[in-house]
Amino acid sequence: MVRATEVRLPGVPPPRLQNPQLAREWEREAREKLNKPRPTTFNVARLRRFLEHDHHETRSALYELFRQPVFHLRYGMTLHEERQLTMDRWRVIHEAGFLRDTISNRTPEGRSKFMAIIESIGMLDHSLDIKMSVHYGLFGSAVALLGSDEQAQRWLPDIEACRMLGCFALTELGHGSNTRGIQTEARYDPKTQHFTIRTPCDEAQKYWIGGAAQSARWSVVFAQLFTDGKCHGIHPFLVRIRADDGTPAPSVTAADCGHKCGLNGIDNGILFFDDVRVPLDRLLARHAFVRPDGTYKSMFASSDARFGAALGALTAGRVSIAAGGINQAKIGLTIALRYALQRRAFGAPGSKKETLLMDYRAHQVRLLAPLATTLVMQVALNELKEMWYAQKDKRRLHVWSSGFKALMTWHMAETLQEAREACGGMGYKSENRIGPIKNEHDIAVTFEGDNKILLQAVAKAMLPEFIRGVRRAGHFKGHFAYLNERHALRALDVDAMDVRTPLFGRKIMQRREGALFARLLRVLERKRARGMSEFDAWNDSAILVEQAARAHTELVLTDLFWAKIDELAGGVDDDIAKVLRVCGALYVAQRIDVQPVFLRLRIISTDVAERVHNEVAELAAELKPHALDLVDSFGIPPHLLAPIAFDYVAHNSRARL
Amino acid sequence: MVRATEVRLPGVPPPRLQNPQLAREWEREAREKLNKPRPTTFNVARLRRFLEHDHHETRSALYELFRQPVFHLRYGMTLHEERQLTMDRWRVIHEAGFLRDTISNRTPEGRSKFMAIIESIGMLDHSLDIKMSVHYGLFGSAVALLGSDEQAQRWLPDIEACRMLGCFALTELGHGSNTRGIQTEARYDPKTQHFTIRTPCDEAQKYWIGGAAQSARWSVVFAQLFTDGKCHGIHPFLVRIRADDGTPAPSVTAADCGHKCGLNGIDNGILFFDDVRVPLDRLLARHAFVRPDGTYKSMFASSDARFGAALGALTAGRVSIAAGGINQAKIGLTIALRYALQRRAFGAPGSKKETLLMDYRAHQVRLLAPLATTLVMQVALNELKEMWYAQKDKRRLHVWSSGFKALMTWHMAETLQEAREACGGMGYKSENRIGPIKNEHDIAVTFEGDNKILLQAVAKAMLPEFIRGVRRAGHFKGHFAYLNERHALRALDVDAMDVRTPLFGRKIMQRREGALFARLLRVLERKRARGMSEFDAWNDSAILVEQAARAHTELVLTDLFWAKIDELAGGVDDDIAKVLRVCGALYVAQRIDVQPVFLRLRIISTDVAERVHNEVAELAAELKPHALDLVDSFGIPPHLLAPIAFDYVAHNSRARL
Repeated sequence: MVRATEVRLPGVPPPRLQNPQLAREWEREAREKLNKPRPTTFNVARLRRFLEHDHHETRSALYELFRQPVFHLRYGMTLHEERQLTMDRWRVIHEAGFLRDTISNRTPEGRSKFMAIIESIGMLDHSLDIKMSVHYGLFGSAVALLGSDEQAQRWLPDIEACRMLGCFALTELGHGSNTRGIQTEARYDPKTQHFTIRTPCDEAQKYWIGGAAQSARWSVVFAQLFTDGKCHGIHPFLVRIRADDGTPAPSVTAADCGHKCGLNGIDNGILFFDDVRVPLDRLLARHAFVRPDGTYKSMFASSDARFGAALGALTAGRVSIAAGGINQAKIGLTIALRYALQRRAFGAPGSKKETLLMDYRAHQVRLLAPLATTLVMQVALNELKEMWYAQKDKRRLHVWSSGFKALMTWHMAETLQEAREACGGMGYKSENRIGPIKNEHDIAVTFEGDNKILLQAVAKAMLPEFIRGVRRAGHFKGHFAYLNERHALRALDVDAMDVRTPLFGRKIMQRREGALFARLLRVLERKRARGMSEFDAWNDSAILVEQAARAHTELVLTDLFWAKIDELAGGVDDDIAKVLRVCGALYVAQRIDVQPVFLRLRIISTDVAERVHNEVAELAAELKPHALDLVDSFGIPPHLLAPIAFDYVAHNSRARL
Repeated sequence: MVRATEVRLPGVPPPRLQNPQLAREWEREAREKLNKPRPTTFNVARLRRFLEHDHHETRSALYELFRQPVFHLRYGMTLHEERQLTMDRWRVIHEAGFLRDTISNRTPEGRSKFMAIIESIGMLDHSLDIKMSVHYGLFGSAVALLGSDEQAQRWLPDIEACRMLGCFALTELGHGSNTRGIQTEARYDPKTQHFTIRTPCDEAQKYWIGGAAQSARWSVVFAQLFTDGKCHGIHPFLVRIRADDGTPAPSVTAADCGHKCGLNGIDNGILFFDDVRVPLDRLLARHAFVRPDGTYKSMFASSDARFGAALGALTAGRVSIAAGGINQAKIGLTIALRYALQRRAFGAPGSKKETLLMDYRAHQVRLLAPLATTLVMQVALNELKEMWYAQKDKRRLHVWSSGFKALMTWHMAETLQEAREACGGMGYKSENRIGPIKNEHDIAVTFEGDNKILLQAVAKAMLPEFIRGVRRAGHFKGHFAYLNERHALRALDVDAMDVRTPLFGRKIMQRREGALFARLLRVLERKRARGMSEFDAWNDSAILVEQAARAHTELVLTDLFWAKIDELAGGVDDDIAKVLRVCGALYVAQRIDVQPVFLRLRIISTDVAERVHNEVAELAAELKPHALDLVDSFGIPPHLLAPIAFDYVAHNSRARL
């Protein structure tokens, strides 16, 4: 063999990565190719503002900032380069003042602004948005919300100014999803008035802690608190884990979780504590405190309730992860659709030009059905955001954010995969973004609550409400009130209805939800009657539980969506309502078409199923002329897109080698 | 802010990657944790040989070779490191003699041995298997099969000895899937007795060519051949693209396709030809040649037929990609199932130990249904391999390999995603392999024929066979012969049948296929009657076309599977047949349960659908005690698995920091 060591791999010029200047060039070239006269039937700018929902100026300002060289998209970095780049980018955003008062402003306005910033950053760099979510959203918020007022005042200025870089040490090797089981211990000694924090076994090592491997100097550490030998449950402590110069704090051992499939700008780490001494005033004391003599006081009746309240205070995560999912789907669809509008392949025999990808039926369905879903989810998500900003109806917030996070991140994963495949090899090339963001964001489906576990939580929360209605002899209240009309519902001849109408979608979704919860209740009762424990009966019904939760969440999504469209209709945004109506109909049709549960439970007849099936392709074809306007309404600037979103031939031309 | 540039990222020890020594340690530790007494009901070693099918010694020898340090799994390399590592690994395998006579041995034995080698290498490193597939399977085979005997004899020794490193320059920027449209030109000049190869426009640049960016010195270049101004269609030429020292050949310009989401060991490149002079005898002349005076002779009546034959000779690709898909699913499932057998989370209130992941219903279904599918596909694939080795029934080989490649690579992508999610964050960690192989192999769903295009080809090939049967007044021959008994078929009361029996599955699958092809024919005729062109009618029916192709392929899969199981049953391998029967039943049940088409077309009633739905979870639970034995039967050595497949706590223990 020509020995491989002798085979010189000669240097060849690497492809140019996108940067704002190049992006502007592309945009100019693409105009002729893509922006042919098309039947723009709605105001794209107004749809953009509607979808973006809030803080338009902040979002635009960040997109402008991303023109700076430090933000140019880069691929194939080493772990170290990627981590350093994340720190560098953070610094630039920090110094530009975007994050001033981010933690201390606890108004709806403050919350929504932080969300808008995190969302915009997530359009560019997932590591960067997680880095900041960890520092401000978890570490900082823990101090603000779990610390006493005095504690918050003492530390927040340094945290907001990034003089105290922090991490959030909750999960352990042995307990990731089930954090109630963590084993780290904090024992109070009244003599020294210190806690001693200790990792009692290998499974109790803090694991996956973002920032713990290298960058964080401080940590909020969750541990089982003991005073006088008695365990009071899980409490948060502010712990120094490194000196400012990076040397480890005494008795703290840090290690690196190592390379991941994405998110390598985050230095996830491991922490072991060997009797780390922590002064009394480092127990974050809003919900419980210890007196110097060791007396323990809690504001909650049970330690479970206290831990629930502590985590509940930090729910921003699920809402912002759901938003991130939708945003990544938008990026993938924008790139794949713009490519489909210029790329040609095969064609009728004898035709001069090959056929545009976008003119293939299969391509329309594969990209426009996810586009419709994305728009429906965005509208519904904006309603959830409102609830979260206002912090109202916390129970519903918990249920909806769980369900939305699950369905929206799964939607993201499926959509990015579809977009990747729809672009063929080009979708696999890093500079075209779809592949990289697929990897960067894949973790979203399991973190801050694995999606399957979140759906279990949705069903668990809704079932008692359903049962109360059943017990009241069918007088349902709240969400299930529609079941009071179920005789009318059954009489309603959905077979004769136009499957595009909101009413059809709502009734079908309601009937599915009602049928699944009724069945779940029946199945659980039967299993318990046969002597099964509550836990076993639930576990045994897991598939049904998941379907019920999905049914609930899809119903809520469509209800929120149609309610909002009704608001728009007839007014100045009637044009927007019109195109979104097509999206809503396609979303509903596609949901029914791909899930056998509707037929299996006889919610629909095979005739209706056939009609719905045909509508999917029809509605996708109807949406085709609006595809470019719809993705333009996402408002993603060219430098956050990819070469194939513009003139892919010009980008790859000889002249540009 | 503590300026990020001032934030020293202190070094921490990186986690230890698996290597054979570590892997042996884990294996020892894991034995107690996983290999508890279990009801092993079948001979695992015999099942392994059955699934592996052939060349057991070669496969084992390669797995042994992979204990050498150069083969230790590595992550987070730079592009350059990864490419160099691929070359280094290739050299070691080459020098160990595995690839002697690989191209020149054109017997079934030779073909199956090369397949076994490529498969085994693919278990370790996808770049490496593609690197070798390109050099031997595409470049070398093109010279061997498209060159004259004299040409093959002249060059094969140097190609097999790796003194001529080659690439395969077929696809262009403008033509990836539709290679018939390539635009590179080769013009013959009788005066100089040379061809001149030229890239006429940017879209004609050779693109995605594996090896072209750096490592290849030679290339088989496909170009439109012109003599005396007349175009004869696409022909292959052997072209020097670089000197042995790596400097580019005159008039050849190479560029780098750059970073990808995976497969970065392959230096995919771009080639431009500026009137490159190629001597007359470099036209690979088995199918057509040019006399010195410029007279053109072809062995085929049409240029389309010749190009078809040329590509047909190189069909190994789809079979080996299908095999690669199944193999990666095996790796992902082995890791995820072994983790599920030791990882605990949540549990009944008051129970001492948390519940094993494997004891959760949802977890059983999410992992054991794909396991059953993997086993069914492996058995069917082995039958396809036999056909390919023997090169018999080429038409069927084309249809089956297209359908299998599509369904098996999609199965891989779905299974790896499920396995990744089933392992939570651990599945996202590179050392645990699932995430990286997901990325490395994601390209499989679109290369060597995009899956959606392959399914179109399946339907297009089968429809005429169906039509012939219809025209013969219902006397179907060959594959569709079962339709001759369709009255009997309709009379057969599937509602009363045990949904676990092979007969049930076969009948349901047949009825679906028959119904879809009948509908496709009807729909196409209706559209043509309305004046649609053939092309438009087909395009308009794309969703139906895809469903018909899927129905055909799933029927073939199950038929091949059950036929093989029947052979095993009653004999020495009856124990194997028994457990595989459960897998077959689960595969069929799961296929029916997730695809609404069976209900929509009234192939099954809602009652049957309910029974099938319940069977999925029941069968998964039945398979649970065999899960570890089944994945053991894949025979994947510990050093090709991952830390979480063994004792994940011991691996992460403090003692090993």
